[in-house]
Amino acid sequence: MTSAPFDWIDEQARARERAGLVRGLRPRPAETTLLDLAGNDYLGLTRHPEVTAGAAAAARRWGGGATGSRLVTGSTELHAELERELAAFCGFESALVLSSGYAANLAAVTALAPHGSLIVSDAGNHASLIDGCRLARGTTQVVPHADPAAARKALGTHEGPAIAVTDSVFSVDGDAAPLAELAAVCRESGAGLVLDDAHGLGVLGAGGRGAAHAAGLAGAPDTVVTVTLSKSLGSQGGAVLGPARVIDHLVNTARTFIFDTGLAPASAGAALAALRLLCREPERAARAREVATRLYELLVGEGFSAVRPDAAVVSVRAPSPGAAVHWAADCRSAGLAVGCFRPPSVPDGVSRLRLTARADLSDTQLAEVVAVISRTAP
Amino acid sequence: MTSAPFDWIDEQARARERAGLVRGLRPRPAETTLLDLAGNDYLGLTRHPEVTAGAAAAARRWGGGATGSRLVTGSTELHAELERELAAFCGFESALVLSSGYAANLAAVTALAPHGSLIVSDAGNHASLIDGCRLARGTTQVVPHADPAAARKALGTHEGPAIAVTDSVFSVDGDAAPLAELAAVCRESGAGLVLDDAHGLGVLGAGGRGAAHAAGLAGAPDTVVTVTLSKSLGSQGGAVLGPARVIDHLVNTARTFIFDTGLAPASAGAALAALRLLCREPERAARAREVATRLYELLVGEGFSAVRPDAAVVSVRAPSPGAAVHWAADCRSAGLAVGCFRPPSVPDGVSRLRLTARADLSDTQLAEVVAVISRTAP
Ligand SMILES: Cc1ncc(COP(=O)(O)O)c(C=O)c1O
Ligand SMILES: Cc1ncc(COP(=O)(O)O)c(C=O)c1O
Repeated sequence: MTSAPFDWIDEQARARERAGLVRGLRPRPAETTLLDLAGNDYLGLTRHPEVTAGAAAAARRWGGGATGSRLVTGSTELHAELERELAAFCGFESALVLSSGYAANLAAVTALAPHGSLIVSDAGNHASLIDGCRLARGTTQVVPHADPAAARKALGTHEGPAIAVTDSVFSVDGDAAPLAELAAVCRESGAGLVLDDAHGLGVLGAGGRGAAHAAGLAGAPDTVVTVTLSKSLGSQGGAVLGPARVIDHLVNTARTFIFDTGLAPASAGAALAALRLLCREPERAARAREVATRLYELLVGEGFSAVRPDAAVVSVRAPSPGAAVHWAADCRSAGLAVGCFRPPSVPDGVSRLRLTARADLSDTQLAEVVAVISRTAP
Repeated sequence: MTSAPFDWIDEQARARERAGLVRGLRPRPAETTLLDLAGNDYLGLTRHPEVTAGAAAAARRWGGGATGSRLVTGSTELHAELERELAAFCGFESALVLSSGYAANLAAVTALAPHGSLIVSDAGNHASLIDGCRLARGTTQVVPHADPAAARKALGTHEGPAIAVTDSVFSVDGDAAPLAELAAVCRESGAGLVLDDAHGLGVLGAGGRGAAHAAGLAGAPDTVVTVTLSKSLGSQGGAVLGPARVIDHLVNTARTFIFDTGLAPASAGAALAALRLLCREPERAARAREVATRLYELLVGEGFSAVRPDAAVVSVRAPSPGAAVHWAADCRSAGLAVGCFRPPSVPDGVSRLRLTARADLSDTQLAEVVAVISRTAP
């Protein structure tokens, strides 16, 4: 028998081709004249000299890698320092750093949803939370997007441990979860709240302390927050923030923590430098929000269908996947990098341009952004 | 209702306490006199000046983070360079770098096991492969450890796409998978082979080209290999190696690739520097194997129950979880860091000391290691 075990992927490739949904990598050079509104470097810190120096110094001092899982050789004093300062900044008792935000979400959801428990998950949640639900031993009930009443109903049907899981700011449209209502619903039914603050840290709350802090939930015994170090903090990695007993529980049970090599020292060093910068320059958070609001207003003024941003993501609707691709490509030719979200990355099938407001964008740059988007619109 | 949603974790904590299975973090300082046989820095490269300089230079040139997912802004020319050189080194057409070896395994298994397919998975596989099986749409059949006949039987029952999934070197005991037989079984039944070479890269094969290369499987159209950049290459990150069409398929479908921020430039830079060092100094691979064999022989000579190492991991059995913990602690007090694997990290419930042979250990150091292990044995 002539074996061709992966032949079936060619059919899928052809189907993608027909649907205009082929994705390919486009490696970028170190220096470019493109104006970047596609990345998630909300505070403009990833190339800040203190952040890159933090990475470089950590690599020189600690080595290129952590050398093992966090429970064996992969915990350095640098990791501990980052955990202490992150927890203190966001207002939580403890923090645990993992190799990515994705891994942090898998860890938090699987460890807090044991057999017999219920997970109530927002339909707009990030892929990593969804994968966490799929891996968890508990049962998942997906509820309509941003619908606390639906969450209440779902939680009401269950006896035993339960959590509600939500993005604080949804990655596609940049809209915020109804946190206050959701927290009230959770308390009413004795459920825990797991909040993915990937797009809130550094942007929302006083000085960028995040969505939980803004909602008065920081340090609450029933609230667990996950963050990524790869967006506002300009690095790589993720963390779970919560009560000390929850963090201990993760150390002892979360598979993506136990069986994964510790975060590289350079990434821990970069994130720590960014965090300290943000503490010193808290106005960066407010500026990112301001830029987003301004960008939204300018776009709506031009007649585009955009979602009012609750943080730093501004989403603009496109008529079709094909139109979105062409629009983004035309922006690029005109010197502007924007994100282009298409199926299957969008829960509702609607394609969008996705713009990220960076704290370091000037008003002149914003005007230029809007001019390019208008000129290239389908 | 007074809510205490996470109270159930206290019960689990008490049960761990009673069983002597509590784990805690022990952050290490940058400089120590401990002799490290616990980490996975097999070639002794993580603190090599070229590797740390590679990390530092990459952070300065590219920034502290990749700024976005690989499909948006997170692919730099550095990532592309690392992918090209990794693929060429290991003998595969293409490579795709992800944020960790864990993420690489989730990506490979989920993308290659669609609905209706079969995954035949070795009972000793790493947690990340197991989680990949759990997340995949296909059906998983777990077969006894290192048993090609069982794999043949499992594959024989299935129509449609199938893969066999195995560690090349098992992380607990350091024994190798029966690759030649398994590959023959896969070809016979038209199944693909997915090989996790986390502990093989840099150690097995000519100049450390890995287990697939050693078995004559490199570049085969039906073979996909995952590696980590966090062990022999002294950094962080993972990669999938395989035919170009498989890599394209992952770019388009693998969730832990699409929805995850790209690997930090510093980690890509460190891994690339380590890879180039290994190309220049291929004898490091053979030396790691030699050290492992020597260590094993010395331990067996002292009467310990150890597994003959197929790569650089040497596993020594301990009578109980408690004894293993004390043994490891006593080694530590005597200046030797060793790994201690206990339930639930061991598939068979047997606790072990886990020693890693590093290419840069001297014969004097090996003698010292064996002396400490003997002196502290339960
Ligand atoms: C809402 C959300 N959660 C989690 C993640 C994953 O974080 P990371 O990229 O650090 O793995 C992302 C983006 O990547 C995200 O947008
Ligand atoms: C066999 C095996 N596969 C995969 C991994 C995961 O790799 P990483 O730590 O880079 O995520 C590890 C260890 O961590 C491992 O031992």
